[in-house]
Amino acid sequence: MREVFQQELADVQNGLVEVSRGVLEAIRNATQAFQTSDVSLADKVIGNDINIDEQTARIDDLTVEILLLQAPVARDLRFVVTTMRIGSSLERMGDLAAHIAQLARLRFPEFVGPEGLREKFVRAGELACAQAEKIAALLDTEEEALIDDIISSDDAIDDLHKEVLDYLTAHTDDLSGQTAQIVDATLANRYFERFSDHAVSIARRMRYLQDGAPTAE
Amino acid sequence: MREVFQQELADVQNGLVEVSRGVLEAIRNATQAFQTSDVSLADKVIGNDINIDEQTARIDDLTVEILLLQAPVARDLRFVVTTMRIGSSLERMGDLAAHIAQLARLRFPEFVGPEGLREKFVRAGELACAQAEKIAALLDTEEEALIDDIISSDDAIDDLHKEVLDYLTAHTDDLSGQTAQIVDATLANRYFERFSDHAVSIARRMRYLQDGAPTAE
Repeated sequence: MREVFQQELADVQNGLVEVSRGVLEAIRNATQAFQTSDVSLADKVIGNDINIDEQTARIDDLTVEILLLQAPVARDLRFVVTTMRIGSSLERMGDLAAHIAQLARLRFPEFVGPEGLREKFVRAGELACAQAEKIAALLDTEEEALIDDIISSDDAIDDLHKEVLDYLTAHTDDLSGQTAQIVDATLANRYFERFSDHAVSIARRMRYLQDGAPTAE
Repeated sequence: MREVFQQELADVQNGLVEVSRGVLEAIRNATQAFQTSDVSLADKVIGNDINIDEQTARIDDLTVEILLLQAPVARDLRFVVTTMRIGSSLERMGDLAAHIAQLARLRFPEFVGPEGLREKFVRAGELACAQAEKIAALLDTEEEALIDDIISSDDAIDDLHKEVLDYLTAHTDDLSGQTAQIVDATLANRYFERFSDHAVSIARRMRYLQDGAPTAE
């Protein structure tokens, strides 16, 4: 019985690692589709999102089954509960990558947002991809240094988020008649920021798992 | 032991009802602050959000403790797990109400967004308050008719969300030089939509609790 249980916990962990790789691929492709206005790549991200949703639903079912049949205690219970929450963050990250791809698709063949923001969005994409890479590595290796790294990256992402909003309000005259670009840039900015928020939330939950520290956000 | 357990489950449920009332007050005040540019009311919503966060964190701790000490099975387990998720949706609804209040605060004494959208945002606020009212009633009474009601309201909210975006892109000429208003309207529109998404998600989870139906979203 104990062996089955350990195997189930390992299945859950492997499932999360797999989903995090799917999220990494999604945000990489979404970012590239966004930068290069690549519609077929955007479609791929949008189409693949259902896989991420299905994978996280399966992990969710498995964790509920473990709770039901194995009644885990202490560290195992903490692991199972944390897993459910990490799964739900990964699912949202997949959704946000799909939202970014949708913006690229919607504005094709134009760039999403004002041209003056292109560089900032390249940076936002790089930061989001870096966070997703670290999350995939963290779930796989549980390396503690990655936790600090993910949490501390959030400041740069928040600064960039603010810079985009500042740019928009500072360039009101140049942006006359570019309503769609302003709307899109506002949404893309929000999606990238939320993507990183979820990465930080996962890192905090991994820390809780490692040392029982509270996960105040 | 069994009595303690039933009391703990009741505490969790009462906690959720209390939080949902806090969320209802938050969205009502946020909506009013938004419509009337009332800064002190906006401040109240922003300041109270910490209470909602603390309440949901307490419920979360309690559910983990129940899992740990009582090892519930079957319907009780389903209840505890569902509770954790409903708590997390309520927390996000509180955050979104605070975001709406922040927009009102930021733009004071101006209206948030273009004047031409005032009526649509009045409607969005009404719909959000109605969803929050029904959620508070549903968690309290578990009345099944409310579930369908909340889920079916989502269509009207999605339609309105699309109408706001359509308005923005259709009025590009009139909106020249109103970048801040376009940014704010885009964000407010997104916040109201996400608020309702969480309401629908809670309703689906309550249905799952009642009849074990899947919660595909």
